Amino acid sequence: MTKILLIQGPNMAYLGRREPEHYGTTTAAELDELCRGHAGEHGYELEIFYTHVEGEAIGRIYQAVDDGADVLVMNPAGMTYAGYPMRDCLKAVAPVLPYIEIHVRNNEARGVHSVPGESAAGIVAGFGMNSYLLGLDAALVLAGRRSGWG
Amino acid sequence: MTKILLIQGPNMAYLGRREPEHYGTTTAAELDELCRGHAGEHGYELEIFYTHVEGEAIGRIYQAVDDGADVLVMNPAGMTYAGYPMRDCLKAVAPVLPYIEIHVRNNEARGVHSVPGESAAGIVAGFGMNSYLLGLDAALVLAGRRSGWG
Amino acid sequence: MTKILLIQGPNMAYLGRREPEHYGTTTAAELDELCRGHAGEHGYELEIFYTHVEGEAIGRIYQAVDDGADVLVMNPAGMTYAGYPMRDCLKAVAPVLPYIEIHVRNNEARGVHSVPGESAAGIVAGFGMNSYLLGLDAALVLAGRRSGWG
Amino acid sequence: MTKILLIQGPNMAYLGRREPEHYGTTTAAELDELCRGHAGEHGYELEIFYTHVEGEAIGRIYQAVDDGADVLVMNPAGMTYAGYPMRDCLKAVAPVLPYIEIHVRNNEARGVHSVPGESAAGIVAGFGMNSYLLGLDAALVLAGRRSGWG
Amino acid sequence: MTKILLIQGPNMAYLGRREPEHYGTTTAAELDELCRGHAGEHGYELEIFYTHVEGEAIGRIYQAVDDGADVLVMNPAGMTYAGYPMRDCLKAVAPVLPYIEIHVRNNEARGVHSVPGESAAGIVAGFGMNSYLLGLDAALVLAGRRSGWG
Amino acid sequence: MTKILLIQGPNMAYLGRREPEHYGTTTAAELDELCRGHAGEHGYELEIFYTHVEGEAIGRIYQAVDDGADVLVMNPAGMTYAGYPMRDCLKAVAPVLPYIEIHVRNNEARGVHSVPGESAAGIVAGFGMNSYLLGLDAALVLAGRRSGWG
Amino acid sequence: MTKILLIQGPNMAYLGRREPEHYGTTTAAELDELCRGHAGEHGYELEIFYTHVEGEAIGRIYQAVDDGADVLVMNPAGMTYAGYPMRDCLKAVAPVLPYIEIHVRNNEARGVHSVPGESAAGIVAGFGMNSYLLGLDAALVLAGRRSGWG
Amino acid sequence: MTKILLIQGPNMAYLGRREPEHYGTTTAAELDELCRGHAGEHGYELEIFYTHVEGEAIGRIYQAVDDGADVLVMNPAGMTYAGYPMRDCLKAVAPVLPYIEIHVRNNEARGVHSVPGESAAGIVAGFGMNSYLLGLDAALVLAGRRSGWG
Amino acid sequence: MTKILLIQGPNMAYLGRREPEHYGTTTAAELDELCRGHAGEHGYELEIFYTHVEGEAIGRIYQAVDDGADVLVMNPAGMTYAGYPMRDCLKAVAPVLPYIEIHVRNNEARGVHSVPGESAAGIVAGFGMNSYLLGLDAALVLAGRRSGWG
Amino acid sequence: MTKILLIQGPNMAYLGRREPEHYGTTTAAELDELCRGHAGEHGYELEIFYTHVEGEAIGRIYQAVDDGADVLVMNPAGMTYAGYPMRDCLKAVAPVLPYIEIHVRNNEARGVHSVPGESAAGIVAGFGMNSYLLGLDAALVLAGRRSGWG
Amino acid sequence: MTKILLIQGPNMAYLGRREPEHYGTTTAAELDELCRGHAGEHGYELEIFYTHVEGEAIGRIYQAVDDGADVLVMNPAGMTYAGYPMRDCLKAVAPVLPYIEIHVRNNEARGVHSVPGESAAGIVAGFGMNSYLLGLDAALVLAGRRSGWG
Amino acid sequence: MTKILLIQGPNMAYLGRREPEHYGTTTAAELDELCRGHAGEHGYELEIFYTHVEGEAIGRIYQAVDDGADVLVMNPAGMTYAGYPMRDCLKAVAPVLPYIEIHVRNNEARGVHSVPGESAAGIVAGFGMNSYLLGLDAALVLAGRRSGWG
Repeated sequence: MTKILLIQGPNMAYLGRREPEHYGTTTAAELDELCRGHAGEHGYELEIFYTHVEGEAIGRIYQAVDDGADVLVMNPAGMTYAGYPMRDCLKAVAPVLPYIEIHVRNNEARGVHSVPGESAAGIVAGFGMNSYLLGLDAALVLAGRRSGWG
Repeated sequence: MTKILLIQGPNMAYLGRREPEHYGTTTAAELDELCRGHAGEHGYELEIFYTHVEGEAIGRIYQAVDDGADVLVMNPAGMTYAGYPMRDCLKAVAPVLPYIEIHVRNNEARGVHSVPGESAAGIVAGFGMNSYLLGLDAALVLAGRRSGWG
Repeated sequence: MTKILLIQGPNMAYLGRREPEHYGTTTAAELDELCRGHAGEHGYELEIFYTHVEGEAIGRIYQAVDDGADVLVMNPAGMTYAGYPMRDCLKAVAPVLPYIEIHVRNNEARGVHSVPGESAAGIVAGFGMNSYLLGLDAALVLAGRRSGWG
Repeated sequence: MTKILLIQGPNMAYLGRREPEHYGTTTAAELDELCRGHAGEHGYELEIFYTHVEGEAIGRIYQAVDDGADVLVMNPAGMTYAGYPMRDCLKAVAPVLPYIEIHVRNNEARGVHSVPGESAAGIVAGFGMNSYLLGLDAALVLAGRRSGWG
Repeated sequence: MTKILLIQGPNMAYLGRREPEHYGTTTAAELDELCRGHAGEHGYELEIFYTHVEGEAIGRIYQAVDDGADVLVMNPAGMTYAGYPMRDCLKAVAPVLPYIEIHVRNNEARGVHSVPGESAAGIVAGFGMNSYLLGLDAALVLAGRRSGWG
Repeated sequence: MTKILLIQGPNMAYLGRREPEHYGTTTAAELDELCRGHAGEHGYELEIFYTHVEGEAIGRIYQAVDDGADVLVMNPAGMTYAGYPMRDCLKAVAPVLPYIEIHVRNNEARGVHSVPGESAAGIVAGFGMNSYLLGLDAALVLAGRRSGWG
Repeated sequence: MTKILLIQGPNMAYLGRREPEHYGTTTAAELDELCRGHAGEHGYELEIFYTHVEGEAIGRIYQAVDDGADVLVMNPAGMTYAGYPMRDCLKAVAPVLPYIEIHVRNNEARGVHSVPGESAAGIVAGFGMNSYLLGLDAALVLAGRRSGWG
Repeated sequence: MTKILLIQGPNMAYLGRREPEHYGTTTAAELDELCRGHAGEHGYELEIFYTHVEGEAIGRIYQAVDDGADVLVMNPAGMTYAGYPMRDCLKAVAPVLPYIEIHVRNNEARGVHSVPGESAAGIVAGFGMNSYLLGLDAALVLAGRRSGWG
Repeated sequence: MTKILLIQGPNMAYLGRREPEHYGTTTAAELDELCRGHAGEHGYELEIFYTHVEGEAIGRIYQAVDDGADVLVMNPAGMTYAGYPMRDCLKAVAPVLPYIEIHVRNNEARGVHSVPGESAAGIVAGFGMNSYLLGLDAALVLAGRRSGWG
Repeated sequence: MTKILLIQGPNMAYLGRREPEHYGTTTAAELDELCRGHAGEHGYELEIFYTHVEGEAIGRIYQAVDDGADVLVMNPAGMTYAGYPMRDCLKAVAPVLPYIEIHVRNNEARGVHSVPGESAAGIVAGFGMNSYLLGLDAALVLAGRRSGWG
Repeated sequence: MTKILLIQGPNMAYLGRREPEHYGTTTAAELDELCRGHAGEHGYELEIFYTHVEGEAIGRIYQAVDDGADVLVMNPAGMTYAGYPMRDCLKAVAPVLPYIEIHVRNNEARGVHSVPGESAAGIVAGFGMNSYLLGLDAALVLAGRRSGWG
Repeated sequence: MTKILLIQGPNMAYLGRREPEHYGTTTAAELDELCRGHAGEHGYELEIFYTHVEGEAIGRIYQAVDDGADVLVMNPAGMTYAGYPMRDCLKAVAPVLPYIEIHVRNNEARGVHSVPGESAAGIVAGFGMNSYLLGLDAALVLAGRRSGWG
């Protein structure tokens, strides 16, 4: 069964209360439910991991490699700006665990460069909560699970 | 009926022959067919427009506004680096014609900032030809056509 | 009879609908009428040319040189940021067709440098639609048509 | 009666002798006469103030606010490059005393950014002594004194 | 009762032994006592938290929000230079938990920009150990606990 | 008796009318009263000096050295951005007249570096009018007038 | 028969009248004759294409690929500074249509970097009209038409 | 007995699987054995500590100070690029615990500046796994344990 | 009789007390005497002017032009870093009043660029008080008063 | 008889063994023979000078001026990046000994600016060994030895 | 027998007298003896070459290639900052003569990037005279002469 | 007897023929005579050394140290821009051989920073040939040979 790991970076646990004019009012719990619904609908295993500590996220990723996960989907959040250790981690695991980066907002409009994004297979940004669903869709494509695609 | 305009920027007509190690071997015609298949499957009207001239793309967008198009999906291609007139155009039409930017490759990995991307609602990059299909999926979400989304 | 060419750069045709909080609600047609009224009042020939394509504007300028136009007034609009071909054109024709640059908004307040402005005889910026009338006034001075000036 | 304050920044009193290849041979006294003639012709009150000291110009502007002046026209001259105190002053008084910046030369051609210009309502540059007359014209428009304008 | 959370960032636990020519010889324990004395004197609840891990500090702040703390006082220390996750956290909680940043040394004199400081309500820097006491004073003002203030 | 000199830099005299959304509606006169009240309460001599001219502020500081002042508190205001002569002055008098810099707003949040701040003993910023009172408090600490401090 | 395409970028049609102190007085027509003479002498097919529109030049190049042209010689002129779409085009066709860039002037002396030049096989610059003839010589070498060369 | 602490920064635990074309195929376990062999041969106590969390490495270093360690050898790995908290830590402990930085690859060849390296006594880089052995050799010299050295 | 104007910029009046480790212990009065002795010895008229206000120095220079002064010698001091109004003044008077810049310290060693120095005929820096005497020597050469020079 | 001096800068003597994937396998001796063959064919005197020392190349150029050489052709090689003394030399001799710069590779593609190239009459780059022959051709044009050229 | 060439760059011959607070008091002669002792102890041939001229060092390196040297150890000293010709030389010989760079001081602490270091196999810096011995140790490893290493 | 070494850097031997509009028509031989006349008049030993090779100048300086020279006067000429080895040399000998830098032109006016100037005791620039005489005057002051100076 396809295994996807979804990591929520620093400050994402506060979703719903964090700058709602930018990030909306959907809470982290509601978002999790949305994502688990997607997993149920498409029949894959989804693990969701929240942390404020970059090094813990790195450790979780190496563990996922050992567990045979297929794709990593992550909102690097606070790690976006200077997450060099994460970038190196993602580059290290790229051959066995491809990485899809998602953002709630469109970083290009803010002139923000994503450091972990340098190691991403692909990026989905700017669609609010839907960025997560589109990112999971993309993960299924990468995992060879969606037919009829290019 | 939902109307989506897909614009292929400078050099995209040469797809399939252009740096195939980066852009793959799918030709522009094959990609068009893939996209039209998506339109057929989801029941929306899709217009595809190719041009090497930034100003022509701008004119086509203003015409789409007059025609009542719902969403613009575009690969700015050669306009990515210094497409300021296009950026201003996209900003001007944003309230009536939201823009989804797509890229075959992941620009963050190349350190490339997208100028038109500053005016995008959202961005999908790095999934090869699938970037188009994911971008069209996203367009349907924006047009309120996909149910069960956040 | 004095001949003035007025060029409206990329996106200006959308005036009135484009970011009205910055550019106002006067439409391109209404602005044209305002300018033609000025021409009638001061007795000079005014040609107005709209284009989204930088190269077309360049071609139009060389034609104006051949037609014996006296002054060029232009809002470079989208060409402001990276209009190097236009800048070189304006430098080439400067000895026979002096150029007055106009902007609806004050670029200094936005930290924007105008590339075509490097080749301008003079600049008028920030007065909304009145920038056009002041620019045409200035053109008459350059054409030696206003008496009592320094 | 409309009241306009015209400030001549550092070094402008030396006009006529200062780099005549760039600033012409009109002296400060002759320019004053030209401007007063404009005031007489259009029927408004014009006060002209010269100073080499930025802080004195700032003090004069606050006094003009207290005196009920309608528009400020200024050639910041030597304050152009690093006149941050002046910029803050102009921003502070903007709601009651709008500011029109004038330059004898075209700063864009010299790659010069105007710091006080960040707080200007509008800018007129590059028309030699005529920049002053065009600036005063523009001031009348801002003061609502010119009819038939946009 | 007013609740203030004081966070000591990376390396502050080594105070007294760390570059004493810059940071003095007061130890972390002595400083804590000084601060607790201030709390006792002014009658508010003070919690002090030391950590070398940015993500732990972030977690502690979200917990403080849940606990109903009134003001956060923090010396970001090692997080000053690239603490982007912390900056985003502080911005997220700003409406309910205002942040006062303190530094032992004057960062302006060292040309150091504080990243978390971008989200601060106010900053006190350069007064050695007294920066803490002044920062706690300021916290009381913010909490509306000091009368006779502006 | 302890002597403190408080200098208000360019544009501070306009306080109350200057960008009230940023600087509040307290007038300069009201602020002076607040500060004099503080002086009365703590029993020290306070002199307040306003000027728009950097050089006059410099002269006033050297006079204060001759008069035996103990501490200088200053809001450099317009001098913040390029006040190099002031910075050199403050460095010159630092051994006999320590300098405390205050700002109404938090400069870190605006990405502003203070040039005179390079020579400050300490900085207090972002607390509105309370920055002045906290700065005067800090001055008393520096003058050795507050007991029980570190 | 060897086929060479010569493209003259924006503003080159104005040659002879354009800044003659830099570009000389040879007109575009005279230069064409010079080049055609070279083609006649060396027995190859030469097509010359002028345009002010970058996108048209791009289209012409793709057509040349379809027509089996051997070498492209181009003076990018106004496209030199920000011709990113052209650069990408030239990179795309490089394996089948090598590109030789020519300039009338020596860009190194002006500190100008050529964006299309990033995709060139070789560059000839600074020899006035002779840059064209040397560039055509070089094209023959690339086409394997000149014997006795390294 | 001489005590050396060896810290392996973020991602080093993945050695052997991480970009083997750059970092080789020696695993972390094999490297540890190599280093312990060195310790046994030269008769000193070696502690090896792996972590992905910068703050944990900082805490470990302060503990080593308390334990009386003589030299710290560390590959900062992912902390190289923005490890400011670590840099400050290393500077703080420098008088009692000198730091030798090692890298598997030569950073100068990659244009990478090491932030923690600013606080190093010395650096050994580019020798693959041998960088560790050379670094440990150097540590013995610093600890005064190697005779016949300069 | 040759007339030389010597201007001492902001903070120079404090000489002798200002950072004596850099500027020495000679007071302004002692330096004046040294310079007047030089004037007496060489038989020229020397006027010395101190000011902290850049605009006053500018006014003094224009007055010197009217008085027929031959050479200006100045230590721009605090104006060195951003004295743009002074630079423009010096450029304006250069044809009639050449300017020699002097510095007590060697600015190159501090990486400081002098803005007024852009308009200097020559510069003498780094010789402490002797910079003044060498600068006055140079002024005599410029005034054609020293024989046997190149 | 026309005299051409060909200088081979630092590292060119190692040609053939130096990064053959970039510079080819032709040795310096073989290249010399190729060039001498060109000289024989066109009937001019060719002197070839190799050096690794910039100052020696400068001395050789001044000697060539004294010997009446007509044109200098040089591959600055290692001097390309920071050859300021050479640049000044070439500028000094330009009126009597024009300089043609050649490169084996296309520097624009590598983002390399040539410092000596700032003083070149013209540049030929990117054609491998043929750059030398094209450069010598160009030298003959400059020396007025090729007829029928523009 | 293994052959190592040790090059001492510009200013190293002055060792012992050169900034002894940074470079120590060991003279060049004493250092040579130290290195020769190392060679004797480990049984390899060591040649030491001093020069102030970059081009001479380059020539010496090519000669070493011809002589069959195994490893190059060099302190680039004055060549560190802009030694581009040396960098290119080292890159050229890298396949046959690997290069180990040594520095007496730790360049990272000074923010210095080494240009020749871009072509180094490895770097040893910051250990004073011991950098030489560690560099020679490393050279033996590279030459395959030290057993039991990774 | 006082000994002064005067070094003329790269290209100075060509003086008189080199850009005479900037450097004048005095030849190197004539300048030497001028300087020797100064030496004769003031009774000191003057040695003049010309070289195009930075390393040779460095060697000459170390020899001067051994010969007991008192002051070094040098026009770094071509070494001005990137003469790092020279800068390090000058810093090394500064305690025993102070360095006075001279330039024919005023570098501040050209925006040129002198790298060797970072190690100068003082600088004299912009006085044409007189810069040499003023520099030698200054050397005598440094050597304690001029009485009555500050």
